Amino acid sequence: MPTASVVGASGFAGGELLRILADHPELRVEQATSRQYEKRSVGTVHPNLRDLDLRFSSPEDLDDVDVLFLSAPHGVAMDHIDEYRDVADTVVDLSADFRLQEETQYDEWYDGHTRPELLSESVYGLPEINRENIAGADLVAGGGCNATATILGLTPLAEAGVLDDAHLTVDVKVGSSEGGAGGGAASSHPERSGVVRPYAPISHRHEAEIQQELGVSVSFTVHAVDMVRGASATCHVHPEEMPSKADLWQAFRGAYEDEPFVDLVSGGGGVYRYPEPKSVAGTNRAEIGFEMDERNDRVVVFSAIDNMMKGSAGQAVHAANVALGFDETTGLDYRGLHPVGSP
Amino acid sequence: MPTASVVGASGFAGGELLRILADHPELRVEQATSRQYEKRSVGTVHPNLRDLDLRFSSPEDLDDVDVLFLSAPHGVAMDHIDEYRDVADTVVDLSADFRLQEETQYDEWYDGHTRPELLSESVYGLPEINRENIAGADLVAGGGCNATATILGLTPLAEAGVLDDAHLTVDVKVGSSEGGAGGGAASSHPERSGVVRPYAPISHRHEAEIQQELGVSVSFTVHAVDMVRGASATCHVHPEEMPSKADLWQAFRGAYEDEPFVDLVSGGGGVYRYPEPKSVAGTNRAEIGFEMDERNDRVVVFSAIDNMMKGSAGQAVHAANVALGFDETTGLDYRGLHPVGSP
Amino acid sequence: MPTASVVGASGFAGGELLRILADHPELRVEQATSRQYEKRSVGTVHPNLRDLDLRFSSPEDLDDVDVLFLSAPHGVAMDHIDEYRDVADTVVDLSADFRLQEETQYDEWYDGHTRPELLSESVYGLPEINRENIAGADLVAGGGCNATATILGLTPLAEAGVLDDAHLTVDVKVGSSEGGAGGGAASSHPERSGVVRPYAPISHRHEAEIQQELGVSVSFTVHAVDMVRGASATCHVHPEEMPSKADLWQAFRGAYEDEPFVDLVSGGGGVYRYPEPKSVAGTNRAEIGFEMDERNDRVVVFSAIDNMMKGSAGQAVHAANVALGFDETTGLDYRGLHPVGSP
Amino acid sequence: MPTASVVGASGFAGGELLRILADHPELRVEQATSRQYEKRSVGTVHPNLRDLDLRFSSPEDLDDVDVLFLSAPHGVAMDHIDEYRDVADTVVDLSADFRLQEETQYDEWYDGHTRPELLSESVYGLPEINRENIAGADLVAGGGCNATATILGLTPLAEAGVLDDAHLTVDVKVGSSEGGAGGGAASSHPERSGVVRPYAPISHRHEAEIQQELGVSVSFTVHAVDMVRGASATCHVHPEEMPSKADLWQAFRGAYEDEPFVDLVSGGGGVYRYPEPKSVAGTNRAEIGFEMDERNDRVVVFSAIDNMMKGSAGQAVHAANVALGFDETTGLDYRGLHPVGSP
Repeated sequence: MPTASVVGASGFAGGELLRILADHPELRVEQATSRQYEKRSVGTVHPNLRDLDLRFSSPEDLDDVDVLFLSAPHGVAMDHIDEYRDVADTVVDLSADFRLQEETQYDEWYDGHTRPELLSESVYGLPEINRENIAGADLVAGGGCNATATILGLTPLAEAGVLDDAHLTVDVKVGSSEGGAGGGAASSHPERSGVVRPYAPISHRHEAEIQQELGVSVSFTVHAVDMVRGASATCHVHPEEMPSKADLWQAFRGAYEDEPFVDLVSGGGGVYRYPEPKSVAGTNRAEIGFEMDERNDRVVVFSAIDNMMKGSAGQAVHAANVALGFDETTGLDYRGLHPVGSP
Repeated sequence: MPTASVVGASGFAGGELLRILADHPELRVEQATSRQYEKRSVGTVHPNLRDLDLRFSSPEDLDDVDVLFLSAPHGVAMDHIDEYRDVADTVVDLSADFRLQEETQYDEWYDGHTRPELLSESVYGLPEINRENIAGADLVAGGGCNATATILGLTPLAEAGVLDDAHLTVDVKVGSSEGGAGGGAASSHPERSGVVRPYAPISHRHEAEIQQELGVSVSFTVHAVDMVRGASATCHVHPEEMPSKADLWQAFRGAYEDEPFVDLVSGGGGVYRYPEPKSVAGTNRAEIGFEMDERNDRVVVFSAIDNMMKGSAGQAVHAANVALGFDETTGLDYRGLHPVGSP
Repeated sequence: MPTASVVGASGFAGGELLRILADHPELRVEQATSRQYEKRSVGTVHPNLRDLDLRFSSPEDLDDVDVLFLSAPHGVAMDHIDEYRDVADTVVDLSADFRLQEETQYDEWYDGHTRPELLSESVYGLPEINRENIAGADLVAGGGCNATATILGLTPLAEAGVLDDAHLTVDVKVGSSEGGAGGGAASSHPERSGVVRPYAPISHRHEAEIQQELGVSVSFTVHAVDMVRGASATCHVHPEEMPSKADLWQAFRGAYEDEPFVDLVSGGGGVYRYPEPKSVAGTNRAEIGFEMDERNDRVVVFSAIDNMMKGSAGQAVHAANVALGFDETTGLDYRGLHPVGSP
Repeated sequence: MPTASVVGASGFAGGELLRILADHPELRVEQATSRQYEKRSVGTVHPNLRDLDLRFSSPEDLDDVDVLFLSAPHGVAMDHIDEYRDVADTVVDLSADFRLQEETQYDEWYDGHTRPELLSESVYGLPEINRENIAGADLVAGGGCNATATILGLTPLAEAGVLDDAHLTVDVKVGSSEGGAGGGAASSHPERSGVVRPYAPISHRHEAEIQQELGVSVSFTVHAVDMVRGASATCHVHPEEMPSKADLWQAFRGAYEDEPFVDLVSGGGGVYRYPEPKSVAGTNRAEIGFEMDERNDRVVVFSAIDNMMKGSAGQAVHAANVALGFDETTGLDYRGLHPVGSP
């Protein structure tokens, strides 16, 4: 059976990778690395994995595997990429290190790049928009969570030309798991509970990859709200010319009706008429919906994902499935819960 | 001592009115009406008022008072306004019944109006923008919570001309107390916890009063998030021409430096760099701040209030203070808490 | 393939039954009844089930099935039990209607019983303590959620004789989903958020079934706390004679080491040293752990379950698996999440 | 006007002291110390204090004041007590350093004591049980939050003899602010949200002071639940002989009817029939109530406080008011909110 290892497995996204891979019928987990927790059981850190007979190993002693998932802080992947590619045919990186195609973008949004010559080799790992390039790829860069929600919400409009010369504002609400397992004062429970906090009012780094993938500029703001998992992107589009509702539905259905992980949520009655992160928590699904605001010549698109799954670990396994030629949904058929609090 | 009564006192806003009035040194509470809880102690419904020796009375038996606060559902105030004005020289209505100046607006946004001839008599009750008209007024219409947050955030830009021909999107996040004490499936704890739910994607009624007071159209969307109190308006402004940061500060300081209930939050370090509903919970304060997004020629204004206070009961008492000639801050010096969850 | 139907499928527990059965490889869902939502898609009420091609049907038109799950309010099952048994060889009732063996207990704790002659036919449906009787049973009564947590925590002590003449206090904390989908003022989000509320200080009905199954009296108190799913029982046992820690471990291991759904949590380091509802949310697992309080001659046992799963729908399917002779864990291999908020 | 300073003012309890003192009509704040935030505005850390013209000063440069509040970690007060008493006639310590009267208790529950000769000089600072000794005292030790809730709940029973030879179990639920501003993995929002976590299953240090003040042993367990402020003690008392309900009411009324900060909550109808931390959040009030469990010969007492106020800073100012001869309620008339989330 093909094998997989996870670098940076004690973090939240690393834990999610292990959760998926533990039940993935086509991949066997070889190693889960963590410098801090080396030799301890993965269940010590991830209580949902207590039944796994697996201990964290050192990131220095990587065995050869078929696919290596990198869930390390920004900068680690680019600095160690040769070691990683030595041990694995396919590398899927969950960090931002290989998402942008242009070195200048790393100069502008990050602290530059140490291996810019590899940027043209890597492929953006969101299958819904880049499936053909991911198939067979050996260096895949998973999309950022807020970027993923936004790109999925707006791609049908981009393809339909609605974004051309449009005014475009994206207002994202995201859960506390985005901050990772480390924490800090701002993410302590007393300070983080009940907030609506503009934590990236402008210049959020995901803006760069959204513009790269959609080909348009986007005014982008991210708020912290009181949930643990989830990213919800509300995309306010003021097109040069308003499309018809029928055209929009055609655009969304055309883009997503065959997608296994995208659900169009079309209003109707009841509580759950629009996309909500709660409905997709724990899953690799994205919910997409929209409304026409004729008064203001605006299209409002809602896109909701689990930032840990569709926005990170789930997307990475989805991309690996595509890259290695498995059925795309393999290991990703987790069904969400109802009711559910802030999962 | 001047007297006050509260119609609709068993609701959340009614309870807040009682909380403020109980300690207001210039007003004595005469009656608190509730059909449902008639003759029961107000502490039965509002546990923070257990020490008050006050029982709910029938809305039919109103005594004469100096000021009458109306906290009833939409439509009640317009249908009974003559009775209310009979018993009180000053009526402050917290509902939407007298906020809009044009009957046609009620036709468009509500179910019409039964007393349109009174619309020209009523004054919009947000003192920061309408102080002169409120002084001495006998029919005051308190602003809606989401509208209040938005108007306070954008008024300095409007006055500085930045909104002229701007593209303007306002994305509001609001707590569950906005839904009132009644409840329903969508506001039950299991369904409402941890949500980011687009409950008014388009056509929220507060859009009408925002346009009336600011004089510009606004693309307006309201989300339910997991807090009880609070409204946070993020105003994404794409002006025809970007102002300088210095000009903006001058506009905000000019508008608010003498306002007792508006705090400009100017970034800096620490956790609380931008306006947050948590910081003003329980108070009549508004926090306002902004950022310049030079990449996208955008000004982002953040405005945070307690929807029950500055967005409702606190604003009403503030307006009553102005109307009756008291010191504006009388009874409204409640200081917020830290830390605080989702107050 | 054997078939199953769910009566009362629009409620929370009914939705959980559908969630489990939708992916259960040995059972096919035939009908899901709901008077209120008849003919509407189950996904209207349960957003996690949108992909199911299933509409609610009338409870009056039940087709023959192999197993019928009853998830109706108290009293419905006893009044209609003949109809239910007519259409299904095996009936699993999630209500309290057939949990108690003695009619007098229904007189004391409920409003009596309309079919007392059936009480001797029904079996208490918690497999860990009643597996033999459930196998082949045709009327199974699933245990109450708070009772299940308590019984699982204390059974090893009961079997070891530690409860004989002990003083026994059980303090339960439970989530808002226990109140069901209906809601009401006390379970509205503004009133229910952030509470520690003694909602059953004494005389909680689950006390009756705990005493029936454990054979001892228990001082029982249930608190509402701010989570959606979960029940956590803290069992304070003051035995006549303190057992040794080794004896206790032997008792717990003896009772549970072969149980597929019980995890012993044994302290150690890290955050998750004791049982927590978060760790088992969405799953059919129970976490059990204990501490010795030598200062006070007390054994403290902690037991955590998901009230919707191990405390309701999961237990019911587990019992059905036993009753029908399937592998016990069939359809119940859902793995929990980490991190997770208040799932 | 008499003066006061706060040592350790950047922490949560220190911030609460500043909040109270800022509006205290008999005390003027002289200094607020913080090594970490020296020279920064107190509003940087405590957003509710932005209007104060006060900067943190060094703990080394204390000016003479009338009363000095110590809000430092355990061990600081005992090591520096001479410096503190040099600058202030009255010292009120919020830590555990001077709560216990016996040095042996510090050996057993803490890491010993460096100034045991002072233990006989200090007085336990809970006015409801120690008013006479606090009056005029110069070294006051405020009670622990969980201990305060427990002692207030059980004192009437102790005085009535109901605790003699009783079996006594106290199960406490507490909010995340108890952990202080520091944080750590367990108190990060993703890990702390939605928990019911036994964080002190046995041997919580407050057990020592409860036993000291009540004169009886108590089986004590503390759980973390999802709120920020609040401590709720459920006291399960199995007396040797059950008292009558009338006798109990007499005991509680006798103890508390003249107490300005204790409210007896007597059941009745509505949502708020029992003590809840939500109802007292932000205030110095305690809510106390009880039920008789005749089935199990048990009295269940509920006691709810705000751990930051009645359990810490509020109690300290209350004690200072008593010590300095002010009216007891001075500066402590803050009224709670309704509705309120997890304040």
